[in-house]
Amino acid sequence: MNTIGLIAFALVGSAKAIREEFDLFGITVVGLAMAFAGGMTRDLLVSRVPLALQSPIEISLGLLGVGLAIALSAILPSPDTHPIALVSDAIGLAAFATTGAIVATDANVSAVGVVAIATINAVGGGAVADILLDRSPFILFDDFYASCAVLGGSAYWVGMSVGAAGSTAAVVCAVVTVGTRVAAVTYGWNLPTMQKLGLIRN
Amino acid sequence: MNTIGLIAFALVGSAKAIREEFDLFGITVVGLAMAFAGGMTRDLLVSRVPLALQSPIEISLGLLGVGLAIALSAILPSPDTHPIALVSDAIGLAAFATTGAIVATDANVSAVGVVAIATINAVGGGAVADILLDRSPFILFDDFYASCAVLGGSAYWVGMSVGAAGSTAAVVCAVVTVGTRVAAVTYGWNLPTMQKLGLIRN
Amino acid sequence: MNTIGLIAFALVGSAKAIREEFDLFGITVVGLAMAFAGGMTRDLLVSRVPLALQSPIEISLGLLGVGLAIALSAILPSPDTHPIALVSDAIGLAAFATTGAIVATDANVSAVGVVAIATINAVGGGAVADILLDRSPFILFDDFYASCAVLGGSAYWVGMSVGAAGSTAAVVCAVVTVGTRVAAVTYGWNLPTMQKLGLIRN
Repeated sequence: MNTIGLIAFALVGSAKAIREEFDLFGITVVGLAMAFAGGMTRDLLVSRVPLALQSPIEISLGLLGVGLAIALSAILPSPDTHPIALVSDAIGLAAFATTGAIVATDANVSAVGVVAIATINAVGGGAVADILLDRSPFILFDDFYASCAVLGGSAYWVGMSVGAAGSTAAVVCAVVTVGTRVAAVTYGWNLPTMQKLGLIRN
Repeated sequence: MNTIGLIAFALVGSAKAIREEFDLFGITVVGLAMAFAGGMTRDLLVSRVPLALQSPIEISLGLLGVGLAIALSAILPSPDTHPIALVSDAIGLAAFATTGAIVATDANVSAVGVVAIATINAVGGGAVADILLDRSPFILFDDFYASCAVLGGSAYWVGMSVGAAGSTAAVVCAVVTVGTRVAAVTYGWNLPTMQKLGLIRN
Repeated sequence: MNTIGLIAFALVGSAKAIREEFDLFGITVVGLAMAFAGGMTRDLLVSRVPLALQSPIEISLGLLGVGLAIALSAILPSPDTHPIALVSDAIGLAAFATTGAIVATDANVSAVGVVAIATINAVGGGAVADILLDRSPFILFDDFYASCAVLGGSAYWVGMSVGAAGSTAAVVCAVVTVGTRVAAVTYGWNLPTMQKLGLIRN
């Protein structure tokens, strides 16, 4: 799952950079940032040297995603919105949320800390990519995306609290994340803004 | 003071996100980023796991500020510019600058490092919130805000250098920060740009 | 070389902030961010307290660059595009890429990690400065700039792999970085975008 996630995230990031007419260096950096910035932020928060910098295999998977984005963009108009990319992205979201929850639990942070690190691991890369593209991170105002990681991380913490084995909690986290994400795409879920709730006059 | 600061900062961040029509996840993230990103950056710089991720109480205070922003925004047009919010914000600025100065001194950084970490602790959260909202951090071109933390941090360092007790230096830091901030709001202080100094033709 | 780099980077960052009409605090912060954010990110990635916060000399050099930008901007329209600034900037790029490669090698990261940290050390400050100015980092879509650090970092790693002494590899890294950068400025090199390669219809 982690493998699929790294490739899918790098592909999505690079495809965005291609649309913004970034050069080859920019396409590579945005793709790698999307794939690795979440995990690196997680590692910084728990004070360890980022795994991505030590493992040539992880970086190679990210570069494979970048290459795929370049190759596919010559064929398809938006390779990152193809159903296969969307499903791979949902799998990556789940893989990264689960990894984040496990690492956070090992680092002895609070319940909210577990959910926060799972979410940062899952969506931090996309947020950094959007900032590099000079936009607000889309997760903050659109779509039902980061919320899936919040739900998955919460499920992991609930699982651990009721005494489930770590591997069981991990499976529950992954299933909740990918399940809510696929449902969100299928049914077009969105979190409301205060304006949509009718609570505020503009 | 720290309690007031966390609530006030989260409230101000969330109120900004509400005005930008972010969804409920975005409102929560920008509020928490405003309250915690400064302290977390401080902890990263001195290589320790961020306190905010370990203490459920701190996060709860941040979430209380987010909730207050949501509740108040249904009643007031701009809860973050209400005099009570402005004073609470000044108290938070002082609390965070003081905490930053103390942590930095414990970490044995240089004099400039103490002032830098005090300032980052105090205004880093606001800068991250502005970047999430896709703007330049307002502290860089407007208002007399970060400068209060710079003065407070400098006062702390001067206090420690002349042999004052840590607690005395902390009080001096807090008083200088909140005092200059209240004066700045009252009298409308601003730092000049080079253009206003008449040194540059546009 | 590091001395020249710190002064040159701070000067370039501050000159950009002056053009954006940031106030004196903003001019100082953007200048220092340009000079130090790359090295501080490097230190965070390898889990050590940033050197810049411990050494008063380094900060003083950064502040000297800020002061130079303020003084020169009253005389010249764009002090950061003067040939002397461009050459100093190329020297700084090489110094920072070399330092990054050395620190990364000491931290036992992978080959890609060495190149990544050398590049982040060299261009991370400029990227942070651009984000503070609310733009996409220019290195991602324009100029042949970060690529020089990538080539320099790669040269360092190749040097170490074939058994060269660390000092030899460092010299090779610096020469490759500064040489390709001077050539890029002289001949107007650019990396292509996918659009320029004719691979994509807009």
